[in-house]
Amino acid sequence: MEPKRIVETTLRVRYAETDAMGVVYHANYFVWFEAGRGDFFRTAGQDYGEWERQGYYLPVSEAHARFHAPARYADVVTVRTWVEEARSRGVTLGYEVVDKASQKRLVSGWTRHICMDSNGQACRLPVDMQKLLEQS
Amino acid sequence: MEPKRIVETTLRVRYAETDAMGVVYHANYFVWFEAGRGDFFRTAGQDYGEWERQGYYLPVSEAHARFHAPARYADVVTVRTWVEEARSRGVTLGYEVVDKASQKRLVSGWTRHICMDSNGQACRLPVDMQKLLEQS
Amino acid sequence: MEPKRIVETTLRVRYAETDAMGVVYHANYFVWFEAGRGDFFRTAGQDYGEWERQGYYLPVSEAHARFHAPARYADVVTVRTWVEEARSRGVTLGYEVVDKASQKRLVSGWTRHICMDSNGQACRLPVDMQKLLEQS
Amino acid sequence: MEPKRIVETTLRVRYAETDAMGVVYHANYFVWFEAGRGDFFRTAGQDYGEWERQGYYLPVSEAHARFHAPARYADVVTVRTWVEEARSRGVTLGYEVVDKASQKRLVSGWTRHICMDSNGQACRLPVDMQKLLEQS
Repeated sequence: MEPKRIVETTLRVRYAETDAMGVVYHANYFVWFEAGRGDFFRTAGQDYGEWERQGYYLPVSEAHARFHAPARYADVVTVRTWVEEARSRGVTLGYEVVDKASQKRLVSGWTRHICMDSNGQACRLPVDMQKLLEQS
Repeated sequence: MEPKRIVETTLRVRYAETDAMGVVYHANYFVWFEAGRGDFFRTAGQDYGEWERQGYYLPVSEAHARFHAPARYADVVTVRTWVEEARSRGVTLGYEVVDKASQKRLVSGWTRHICMDSNGQACRLPVDMQKLLEQS
Repeated sequence: MEPKRIVETTLRVRYAETDAMGVVYHANYFVWFEAGRGDFFRTAGQDYGEWERQGYYLPVSEAHARFHAPARYADVVTVRTWVEEARSRGVTLGYEVVDKASQKRLVSGWTRHICMDSNGQACRLPVDMQKLLEQS
Repeated sequence: MEPKRIVETTLRVRYAETDAMGVVYHANYFVWFEAGRGDFFRTAGQDYGEWERQGYYLPVSEAHARFHAPARYADVVTVRTWVEEARSRGVTLGYEVVDKASQKRLVSGWTRHICMDSNGQACRLPVDMQKLLEQS
């Protein structure tokens, strides 16, 4: 099934994100996935920070990435984010990082999230959130 | 097949590694996997930095983690590292992060690596390295 | 002396940048200074990555910051960057981070840089770079 | 005045902490200062995480560092931490990072902290904490 909505986030590689191999350190792509995820919710009118203030959290329960080609300092990249699978108690988001100019694919991956309340208990996603994810 | 050698690395959680949820930010566990990996090679008499000076690199081509329970500031954790699969041109390492005191499992995961020369071309692992990995 | 040129960089706070106090971890502001610095050079037609490829480096020799008020997850902030002092062998850049919406000052600071060649020796800045900095 | 107590923390440089210059990225030394600070309190029988649970915070209000020589991947370094100045409402800590083997000085710096309660208001340090800092 094709995702209905793909949200794009544009980032410029920071020197801090590179490593001694001269390329972006692999774990930083998960940070970019997170930036993409925040934009995905935000552009749908949902602010993740607001959910937290209401007592809902979406911690990462599983994460995966394949590193196809490296990004380097000052490169401009696009992170694409979409819903892979929406469930009542969680969601799986998919990501692709491409070089903005060449559209070359650099990294692909996904993160799985479970909904948690402020006591750390798994819970159902708030209704507006469920709708947002199912329609995406 | 049981891994023959499991190397343990002990770390104390830094405040820098926590996030606004009050727990360790998920991407940092991949950094701990890297610390475990460095110790795995080092305790076998191989220094990854030395390989790089000889023109061999072991970039991460794929990474995976499952987050079972959170670590918090100042917790002492143990990272266990072992060889999952050794090949002539790469290696897959497995990891487990546990709370040192309770031995509670916090995170499990793996990283896949391909051998690369200084021109960025895939290559066979140096012989001493292959031996080390196959015997592990 | 007033700086002639102040370059603005806009950033959105990542969850990765927050800590268990619920605010941006202090060391990350130095990363934002670096992002501002890159934009400062870039908007003047100079690419820091290009200097490195030509064998010139501008490592940080000293850094200072005062933290006036915290930034939080998803806040949009503006980093302002300018030249504090240009010398033949280095430069001091000044920074201010403000909340974009309220213009409230969050952090102020500076970084001192020395010019280094690819052998790690201190050297004079390339002429075009000196001009850029003196005119800023 | 000589500090009465200097606490040493030993760290091994992670690949994640290096940058494209092949050395430790400057902002990461502030993270090492934080690791040193945690150990300083901990070895005096005070746990910073415990203070936070009691509603006291010691955010960084100012930070400074001079970078004398670079650390590289897998280097083992020692962070030395001491009290520069103790006050009723805050404290300034001093740091030195040296290469463990050669004792070569890599970085020196300090951080200033103010005591804050859980409402974000500046407050006096708890008495046991004040004693600890004054006697150090």
